[in-house]
Amino acid sequence: MSSSYGKNIKLTIFGQSHSKAIGMTLEGIPAGKRIDYEKLFEFMQRRAPGKNAYSTPRKEADAPEFLSGVVGDTTCGTPITAVIMNTNTRSSDYDILKDIPRPGHADYTGYIKYGEDRDYTGGGHFSGRLTAPLCIAGGIAIQLLEEKGIYICSRISSIGGIKDEGDLVETSIGCLTGINTGLPFNPASDGDFPTISKEQGEKMKAYIAEKRAEGDSVGGVIECAVFGIPAGVGDPMFDGMENRISQIIFGIPAIKGIEFGNGFEAAALTGSENNDEFCLKEGKIETVTNNCGGILGGITNGMPLIFRVAVKPTPSITKEQKSINLSTKEETTLVVPGRHDPCIVPRAVPCIEAAAALAVYDALLSC
Amino acid sequence: MSSSYGKNIKLTIFGQSHSKAIGMTLEGIPAGKRIDYEKLFEFMQRRAPGKNAYSTPRKEADAPEFLSGVVGDTTCGTPITAVIMNTNTRSSDYDILKDIPRPGHADYTGYIKYGEDRDYTGGGHFSGRLTAPLCIAGGIAIQLLEEKGIYICSRISSIGGIKDEGDLVETSIGCLTGINTGLPFNPASDGDFPTISKEQGEKMKAYIAEKRAEGDSVGGVIECAVFGIPAGVGDPMFDGMENRISQIIFGIPAIKGIEFGNGFEAAALTGSENNDEFCLKEGKIETVTNNCGGILGGITNGMPLIFRVAVKPTPSITKEQKSINLSTKEETTLVVPGRHDPCIVPRAVPCIEAAAALAVYDALLSC
Amino acid sequence: MSSSYGKNIKLTIFGQSHSKAIGMTLEGIPAGKRIDYEKLFEFMQRRAPGKNAYSTPRKEADAPEFLSGVVGDTTCGTPITAVIMNTNTRSSDYDILKDIPRPGHADYTGYIKYGEDRDYTGGGHFSGRLTAPLCIAGGIAIQLLEEKGIYICSRISSIGGIKDEGDLVETSIGCLTGINTGLPFNPASDGDFPTISKEQGEKMKAYIAEKRAEGDSVGGVIECAVFGIPAGVGDPMFDGMENRISQIIFGIPAIKGIEFGNGFEAAALTGSENNDEFCLKEGKIETVTNNCGGILGGITNGMPLIFRVAVKPTPSITKEQKSINLSTKEETTLVVPGRHDPCIVPRAVPCIEAAAALAVYDALLSC
Amino acid sequence: MSSSYGKNIKLTIFGQSHSKAIGMTLEGIPAGKRIDYEKLFEFMQRRAPGKNAYSTPRKEADAPEFLSGVVGDTTCGTPITAVIMNTNTRSSDYDILKDIPRPGHADYTGYIKYGEDRDYTGGGHFSGRLTAPLCIAGGIAIQLLEEKGIYICSRISSIGGIKDEGDLVETSIGCLTGINTGLPFNPASDGDFPTISKEQGEKMKAYIAEKRAEGDSVGGVIECAVFGIPAGVGDPMFDGMENRISQIIFGIPAIKGIEFGNGFEAAALTGSENNDEFCLKEGKIETVTNNCGGILGGITNGMPLIFRVAVKPTPSITKEQKSINLSTKEETTLVVPGRHDPCIVPRAVPCIEAAAALAVYDALLSC
Repeated sequence: MSSSYGKNIKLTIFGQSHSKAIGMTLEGIPAGKRIDYEKLFEFMQRRAPGKNAYSTPRKEADAPEFLSGVVGDTTCGTPITAVIMNTNTRSSDYDILKDIPRPGHADYTGYIKYGEDRDYTGGGHFSGRLTAPLCIAGGIAIQLLEEKGIYICSRISSIGGIKDEGDLVETSIGCLTGINTGLPFNPASDGDFPTISKEQGEKMKAYIAEKRAEGDSVGGVIECAVFGIPAGVGDPMFDGMENRISQIIFGIPAIKGIEFGNGFEAAALTGSENNDEFCLKEGKIETVTNNCGGILGGITNGMPLIFRVAVKPTPSITKEQKSINLSTKEETTLVVPGRHDPCIVPRAVPCIEAAAALAVYDALLSC
Repeated sequence: MSSSYGKNIKLTIFGQSHSKAIGMTLEGIPAGKRIDYEKLFEFMQRRAPGKNAYSTPRKEADAPEFLSGVVGDTTCGTPITAVIMNTNTRSSDYDILKDIPRPGHADYTGYIKYGEDRDYTGGGHFSGRLTAPLCIAGGIAIQLLEEKGIYICSRISSIGGIKDEGDLVETSIGCLTGINTGLPFNPASDGDFPTISKEQGEKMKAYIAEKRAEGDSVGGVIECAVFGIPAGVGDPMFDGMENRISQIIFGIPAIKGIEFGNGFEAAALTGSENNDEFCLKEGKIETVTNNCGGILGGITNGMPLIFRVAVKPTPSITKEQKSINLSTKEETTLVVPGRHDPCIVPRAVPCIEAAAALAVYDALLSC
Repeated sequence: MSSSYGKNIKLTIFGQSHSKAIGMTLEGIPAGKRIDYEKLFEFMQRRAPGKNAYSTPRKEADAPEFLSGVVGDTTCGTPITAVIMNTNTRSSDYDILKDIPRPGHADYTGYIKYGEDRDYTGGGHFSGRLTAPLCIAGGIAIQLLEEKGIYICSRISSIGGIKDEGDLVETSIGCLTGINTGLPFNPASDGDFPTISKEQGEKMKAYIAEKRAEGDSVGGVIECAVFGIPAGVGDPMFDGMENRISQIIFGIPAIKGIEFGNGFEAAALTGSENNDEFCLKEGKIETVTNNCGGILGGITNGMPLIFRVAVKPTPSITKEQKSINLSTKEETTLVVPGRHDPCIVPRAVPCIEAAAALAVYDALLSC
Repeated sequence: MSSSYGKNIKLTIFGQSHSKAIGMTLEGIPAGKRIDYEKLFEFMQRRAPGKNAYSTPRKEADAPEFLSGVVGDTTCGTPITAVIMNTNTRSSDYDILKDIPRPGHADYTGYIKYGEDRDYTGGGHFSGRLTAPLCIAGGIAIQLLEEKGIYICSRISSIGGIKDEGDLVETSIGCLTGINTGLPFNPASDGDFPTISKEQGEKMKAYIAEKRAEGDSVGGVIECAVFGIPAGVGDPMFDGMENRISQIIFGIPAIKGIEFGNGFEAAALTGSENNDEFCLKEGKIETVTNNCGGILGGITNGMPLIFRVAVKPTPSITKEQKSINLSTKEETTLVVPGRHDPCIVPRAVPCIEAAAALAVYDALLSC
């Protein structure tokens, strides 16, 4: 079942970019949990389009409407369904894409999979727009985790070749005192473009603007940390934390890689460099370093859980590209119409947090 | 269910390093498929221990015994169970590890998860030995895929900082003419240490030997390609090929990262650099480049499916390390006893192929 | 996951009796299938309330609104979500039920399971109203099965102690010639109250009316047959046709028993009486009798699949009953308010057909 | 996956009647649970063949060998695999069945499903012998439930038309005081043929003997009760206790019907007769009657959970029957060779208990 996720919770995402609505059903949330709708909406606004120069001009309120599973603002134990009506669609933008698939996009594979009857408008079920329901579910999971003292924090690690500076965990732990005040928790004050170094952040934004002007797009890397997760979460073998997190993360369009702890860097180290030695800290067993990203044998060790994902550059660019006409089976060229982000990394940040929260919450329920 | 994998097939792996046996059950394989036991055994020998200087001296025949699901050498449609009896165990090696967890290993998290009653001997269920049953299942899947003209090929991309040269796909396609002759398919003639450049391979081996002599260990990167997979395999969102492959791959101990196509490199490119333009080649739709690793929107596009995984250095090293005594809750030091690979990358190669084969075979059954 | 069903399709049902909407998501339906909305609506009308003397006066159009998974009237391969808005709710009817659970109803167990935050209005998620989304999904499955020449037909076997006469299979096979003309397929012309014997049907209706006048309710038995299902559908052990069908059928409120073929009667027979001998009929292997209900070893044998379900009398009656006040923990009495069917059997008939169609369609996809 | 069961536990059963071994893997059992092997073996002996006049003369020790998941007699948290080697097989008995399927047996449907490569010897995967691994798993579950004060008790309700007398719950509750002494818990002292009335039990045995002498077989009904299960176990809709129990129960060969509480009898009652009114008993909420069998809305209400299953007469009889030669496609006759029970009801009793225990234990883990 391609659009469902979870062992103890069950998330199902439905909708196409231009269908009547998009939405999600989330089963397995206990009764009696209060959902802070305002906080949820604020969270979702972080991925909402139309806010600034590096996102698509398509504007939608994207306010979720809860159809079931709640009484007022409190869960009642049954499946929670929320939808977002699609109101601002311009399907005619996509007429040309019926025949000519965009390079780098799922247009072609969707055609192979579903044939003539696929919904190609707006990318159909493959559209980045489907991350909005993911953020509804993940936004709820974030609130449920915060109840347990578990917080998720991310930053943009790099855009193009431009890297952020500083250490996410150290920076965040500094901020963590702020959590108790109920403030939103982000490494930088710029919630829409979270970097530790403001200067590097500005360089990244300038680079995006430059490439946008050229009709091009750029990719980047997002780093995500989960704080406060107890030791012992996750299961061996196929249900380890890496397995669970990567299974949901690759559900976000444009993600092409994931690494935990020091990841690919570990491959170049020796065991004595990479192993995290154990120590006691105020009577609690910790590790001196955290190269493993808080996961050993698939199971959390009580240190912050860290991972990074590679986001490819938006495939929809206005530069002319070679493609194929699927009707005539002839080579042709394409200038992609429609409204697209020159860089989806900033809007992908809350999606990554949402996915991480769902994976962690689901794993916690197995404990 | 931590030790089960699959949607259409269902793989369950059982056993601990020092239990009476380890094994696997594989459901969902059609009746009437002939298993070439000799070929399967040859495949499994690629991960078998005790063969050379960079693997553990523990020697076991590791010959699988089929208990069910076959009549003679032919599947009968019911669950296939095969076991490997554990005969050469030296549990006393592990006495010290009951109290003192190895840095970088699952000893500590296994203790947190399962408490005093965990099976700590030999790493229990977390042992790399559990990849032997994975290779039984994957070895069968490889044979079933080859029937359909789908071949899996890997190489060691790097050990420590030493990188292989050449392009896996180009090299393999050269070899692919050999496939028709029924020859085993590997980029280099050295099946136990597959690199494209023999020279780089020798440097890697020398580096492993050097670190082994220091009582240390090294990590590396493995690249894997799947050839002949048709377009349209995989599903959108949470059952895409990236999701399916990463979910099983992280079931192999010591894997800390995975990337598809150009992966993390894509994050530094622009859309016009990274997009794979479409072209016609002998009437067939292909892409000019293959930066996406053969996957768009989670679904194969007919090009070779490519991914790389980061393997961390073996955590069990004989250099003294800091640890904790779990009984006394005091800091201590540990010199790891037992027999361990200074580098598990070579033996991990067939495991990666096995995992990839199972993921691809399972996804094919959804088509 | 309590509200999901299926191996190859995945049905999720959401909503409470008085939530904003009820609905369903159905994954796994191929692209390019045309849904006849009018026929679907006609099917759903068979379970719709408010039509006659033996159903609740609550009137709702119950017209499903499709939010996703279709383009026009054709499936596009992605999850199909349809909702029914709840418009005619009278929650105040249920105020008393917050504290005083109805005997025979899920009010008490819902309270134990979900506590104070359950949605008790209208029975919440336990309401018979949740069978409306089941009928959306099942109505689609029925259309997909008819494409393959598979037809589902049911009758009311008994109401109270009053039994229908005649044989469902024989009667239906007579009707089956009519199927080719596209006519709705039912043993009796009275689609809302299908019996073979009109006379017995009238007696049943009179009995319902009599008990309704007394403020009481009655139960009954429904018999269901699936025609045209090929041999070889279903799997051994836990995914046999009996397992699959019973798992979904018991999702319909008030079902307390199910039997396949001659069911409980078989327990009183000898093997020589009960075994269905094989014969050739126009070159096709059939059985002389069909005591097994078309299923051997969980797998269909090509004969009509037959089962019967026991429907308990509606628990919501207006006769005074003993209950407990959950707040004061004192014994009390209850006269159930609200609008309820004196007999849900007639409206349960299409629900049984819907459930059977989903189970059969799902099993067919495994073949 | 036909041979797997469970949401929180995962049971997989493998093996064919004449394969090298049969066995089971049970995932999800916590670490640190002691398995009383002797008690387990005693339980399994209740279904073992070769003990008396109403069971097959095939004799096997059927002692399970534990391959993994335990250290000594204590679970270690990882998948438990146990096997029974098949030693006393006489496959030649089955040569004729390759071509001529037994009426009432899965020979024919197995042939349709798996074709020429099915394992037809001894019924293959469809053999009643596969209930031995079910009893290993269920026997463990029974021990785990007893730890929680939950006990399972059954009786033979009827054989042929001969009915037992007395009430299972009342009789058992009398015995329940004996449970505290650790005694095995059965309504009658005859553990191999449990009836409340010894006289009726003797009549049943005589009837079996009579039909056996005629080369025929008989069926029966088994009633099962689960005591001590708390209120609130089970989930609404498709994961209710009825759904969960029936899904596993129909995995036992020859079961053709199941009913909960008063089941099919309820269909003939009025609501005022059938509803179970609430009362207080020593401060605890109970129901005056238990017509619902302890389940409302799929969820337990704290009363004993009661169900009955219909067991068809053994299809393998020595009386001559009509069948078909699958090779020649001609009608023929068959006298079934091999060793078969004239009545499998007595040996099915522990299987029903095993299945019920697994369903209840699995559901408890969701609470």
